[in-house]
Amino acid sequence: MMDTPLIMTQIIERAEKYFSKKEVVSRTDGGIHTFTYAEIAARTRRLASVLGKFGIKTGDRVGTLAWNHHRHLEAYFAIPCSGAVLHTINMRLSPQHVSYIVNSAKDRLLLIDPDVIPLLEAIKDELPTVEGYIVMTDKAELPETSLSPLYHYETLLAEGNPKQPFIEDLDENAPAGICYTSATTGNPKGVVYSHRGILLHAIALGLADSTAISERDVALPVVPMFHVNAWGMPFASVWFGTKMVLPGPYFTPKILAELIEAEKVTIAAGVPTIWLGLLKELEETSHDTSSIRAVLCGGSAAPKSMIKAFEQKLGIPFLHAYGMTETSPLVFISKPKSYQEGLPEDELYELKAKQGLVAPMIEIKVVGPDGEVSPDGKEMGELLIRGPWIADEYFQDERTEDTFKDGWLYTGDVVTIDEEGFVKIVDRTKDLIKSGGEWISSVDLENALMAHEGIFEAAVIAVPHEKWQERPIACVVLKDAYKGQVTEENIIEFLKPQFAKWWLPDEVVFLDEIPKTGVGKFLKRALRDQLQDKYIKN
Amino acid sequence: MMDTPLIMTQIIERAEKYFSKKEVVSRTDGGIHTFTYAEIAARTRRLASVLGKFGIKTGDRVGTLAWNHHRHLEAYFAIPCSGAVLHTINMRLSPQHVSYIVNSAKDRLLLIDPDVIPLLEAIKDELPTVEGYIVMTDKAELPETSLSPLYHYETLLAEGNPKQPFIEDLDENAPAGICYTSATTGNPKGVVYSHRGILLHAIALGLADSTAISERDVALPVVPMFHVNAWGMPFASVWFGTKMVLPGPYFTPKILAELIEAEKVTIAAGVPTIWLGLLKELEETSHDTSSIRAVLCGGSAAPKSMIKAFEQKLGIPFLHAYGMTETSPLVFISKPKSYQEGLPEDELYELKAKQGLVAPMIEIKVVGPDGEVSPDGKEMGELLIRGPWIADEYFQDERTEDTFKDGWLYTGDVVTIDEEGFVKIVDRTKDLIKSGGEWISSVDLENALMAHEGIFEAAVIAVPHEKWQERPIACVVLKDAYKGQVTEENIIEFLKPQFAKWWLPDEVVFLDEIPKTGVGKFLKRALRDQLQDKYIKN
Ligand SMILES: Nc1ncnc2c1ncn2[C@@H]1O[C@H](COP(=O)(O)OP(=O)(O)OP(=O)(O)O)[C@@H](O)[C@H]1O
Ligand SMILES: Nc1ncnc2c1ncn2[C@@H]1O[C@H](COP(=O)(O)OP(=O)(O)OP(=O)(O)O)[C@@H](O)[C@H]1O
Ligand SMILES: [Mg+2]
Ligand SMILES: [Mg+2]
Repeated sequence: MMDTPLIMTQIIERAEKYFSKKEVVSRTDGGIHTFTYAEIAARTRRLASVLGKFGIKTGDRVGTLAWNHHRHLEAYFAIPCSGAVLHTINMRLSPQHVSYIVNSAKDRLLLIDPDVIPLLEAIKDELPTVEGYIVMTDKAELPETSLSPLYHYETLLAEGNPKQPFIEDLDENAPAGICYTSATTGNPKGVVYSHRGILLHAIALGLADSTAISERDVALPVVPMFHVNAWGMPFASVWFGTKMVLPGPYFTPKILAELIEAEKVTIAAGVPTIWLGLLKELEETSHDTSSIRAVLCGGSAAPKSMIKAFEQKLGIPFLHAYGMTETSPLVFISKPKSYQEGLPEDELYELKAKQGLVAPMIEIKVVGPDGEVSPDGKEMGELLIRGPWIADEYFQDERTEDTFKDGWLYTGDVVTIDEEGFVKIVDRTKDLIKSGGEWISSVDLENALMAHEGIFEAAVIAVPHEKWQERPIACVVLKDAYKGQVTEENIIEFLKPQFAKWWLPDEVVFLDEIPKTGVGKFLKRALRDQLQDKYIKN
Repeated sequence: MMDTPLIMTQIIERAEKYFSKKEVVSRTDGGIHTFTYAEIAARTRRLASVLGKFGIKTGDRVGTLAWNHHRHLEAYFAIPCSGAVLHTINMRLSPQHVSYIVNSAKDRLLLIDPDVIPLLEAIKDELPTVEGYIVMTDKAELPETSLSPLYHYETLLAEGNPKQPFIEDLDENAPAGICYTSATTGNPKGVVYSHRGILLHAIALGLADSTAISERDVALPVVPMFHVNAWGMPFASVWFGTKMVLPGPYFTPKILAELIEAEKVTIAAGVPTIWLGLLKELEETSHDTSSIRAVLCGGSAAPKSMIKAFEQKLGIPFLHAYGMTETSPLVFISKPKSYQEGLPEDELYELKAKQGLVAPMIEIKVVGPDGEVSPDGKEMGELLIRGPWIADEYFQDERTEDTFKDGWLYTGDVVTIDEEGFVKIVDRTKDLIKSGGEWISSVDLENALMAHEGIFEAAVIAVPHEKWQERPIACVVLKDAYKGQVTEENIIEFLKPQFAKWWLPDEVVFLDEIPKTGVGKFLKRALRDQLQDKYIKN
């Protein structure tokens, strides 16, 4: 067979040639814009020529701090299709983390949204590798700022070459992107994506048994483009000629609902907190969401009650998936097999709330203290993963050796696997509650709590305990209408029939909000810090 | 990213682990058998251990001369998953061709169906590399034959190891299979398939925009397993846990219709002659075919009238595709884009009768005398193809240099490409009729002829002509009810409104049958030989 490499130029060139009329709808601070793929491709080529003028060479890192919009999409292709490395930076991280990340990657240029200027101004003197800031704005004028040198994206593009050829003869294993983990459990770690990995992963998203992204779809990646490449959805969508809807900055559940209705979105992707918010919106106001064939949800466990509410109350099919920054991210997707569809309702939703079956091309192992666990859905072990879109190291990071061993990625996630191959995340190793020598799953307790009609969000953490080592504490955010109505006792009573007595939380703490990471995951680290003092003192 | 290779062991191991309960239904001369993937995998491991006992090593070729059944499926995996090369041999070729092929590939073992024994007996003395014949039969006894040494497949399997480990650490570019072309235009040419090529091609079959093969499907490959690996369908089906139905030897349209009804087939694949036969069957007798979501048709042009009959009369969605032995085979698939679905009926069927849009990962070029043709659906040029599942040579064959040039496969097919990227095969270069310096497409004339209510099959060939160099002759097979009713004049009158005058065939020859290749394509070579004398004499 020919040794034609799998490289990203194929993706954008396919959209340019065969789907030139299909559209990208982009919401920016200036409003809604619509571009065809012909236009997006020409603008991408212009940007590639601009990068060339800046002297960006094969292997150089170019950073982005931007929301989901068409300019970010152009950068997604112009950078790797010039041979450089797309570094998507989570702008919601602390200034220290952003500075750490830019320096770790040695970014030469930063493509930024106007609203991150204050963040960058605060750290600009710590960024010696950055040679310029390119502002992606609708406005004709550049904002006032001390960042320098500062460039105007559209002005640069206007001077660019719309027929700029992309790089050829690139090795498929060459780096195309780099992204740092969400820093849910510690400092962010850099993960490098190869062209090959990105293409194989994008193809997997097109499989009928996976997310089945196709030309017929209208795809809405709500997951930020700085979070694991928006789960690869932009790559798959461009490749397959899928219409894209990019929700831009500071969207609300209402804005999402309106976009879904106006653009007839068929598939949308985001973390559970996004869907909790949308669920609330759709329950309160009326929107036509009948176009949606799948809500794709990952990044944290999707509570069973939420999946059920989407499917049964709203008639919106729900797809629960699992992945990591280290895994590009798709690893599991929870789609019942044909012969499981007739399961009794409750079992079916148990299944859908699992993280699912492993994608083709990826292999897993679940390893407990005595070797591989038995596939009984009960025995717990750490999840190990390998495959062509799984990282084999952290970028120039000593933590590599703890996580990548004997050709496997050690996820730090504790799971069970059932007879059908469906994997269920019990907890992160760091979040598992070890009480009196036994394990309590914070995820299971959260799942049960979020099924309570009065509870909007809930996180369960371990606090130190003299006798039992650790005990669970439930942190609960009540829905507005239930504030002051639901008591600690009510909640414990509600949990009692579902769990062994020693699983029940020692206390229920009512909060206004659960602290979250930059991508919307519960930040249990912060919760623990917040509550630590109280319990250490006890 | 990890450098885990794409190798075939992943496919069978996935079915073994995650789809162990799903079934393969196999029709042999002994009746219908049903095996689960757990059983198929264990039998495949047994066969792999048997191959080891025969001393088969990495890179060795093992041949099969067999119909589509479960034992052939086991060989499909046991051979490459032992590191050896699966050589599927077209048993309908002439003894000379079979002998040529076995010697060219240097097959060490042949796995054969009982009914090919006479063929092999005739050539056994010309096969010095063959060390043994393994008969795949339901019967307990081996047949009487002069072939030697002769082995009994099931007896060998009974002694094999059901837990035999498959090969590890294989390069993804290692050869997994070899297949010779259909010999429609000359001597067969060997094409080697790599593990990587087979896996990427199988993944492409799973794409929602392609054939979308999934766990939910029941797949019936009617296309023989000796014809381009049954178009890769067995690889995709096993990988995705799809139930398979293998139709076995000497099936008739009636047997196919019954299998479809009994097993609730959802997708079936075969050449146009198969579907013409099935169409006739379904028009004459009643069968429930409501389970079918796609009839996949390639290998020769699918006449528009047939596509229409399937979709409109039978309500069976039709998928026209194009490929070659050299291309694994999938290159084009004719699925209207979302915005084309509203086209007027006639334009829609024109589109579906085209060969379609190129698959992701594959690139094409259409080159005429003045370079790349314009995408206007009119300008003709030769089709060039490249990509990771496209061959880069013929196996030890001098003809390599005519076909593989500057990194492209020169197909010898003349095509047009329209504004939407849809490619239409005008003709094979060798079948194009050059009349008075202009080109006449035999495919277009055949298409029109087959839309005549009285015509069952039609092939148009060129015969030499003093003045015009070549002129078209139509060879027509009438439907039984129309025999003696339809005249040459009727047919020419029927064509007249559709073509320029000089396109009309000089003569209509009525035949009982169009000669066909081993895979059911019109063998125009034979037709030309048959009619040559007559016209040379003129
Ligand atoms: N569907 C899911 N259900 C439960 N947990 C999930 C799911 N999807 C992802 N996760 C969790 O998210 C993790 C991967 O997240 P990500 O790569 O965004 O960074 P992080 O692990 O949150 O941050 P860091 O590694 O920096 O602490 C997984 O290891 C797993 O713990
Ligand atoms: N959908 C289709 N419509 C028209 N022609 C097709 C279609 N699919 C395949 N073909 C023809 O079949 C050819 C590939 O067939 P295959 O590899 O089976 O061997 P062959 O070309 O018939 O035989 P040989 O190369 O030995 O002469 C293509 O080059 C093309 O001419
Ligand atoms: Mg992590
Ligand atoms: Mg050919």
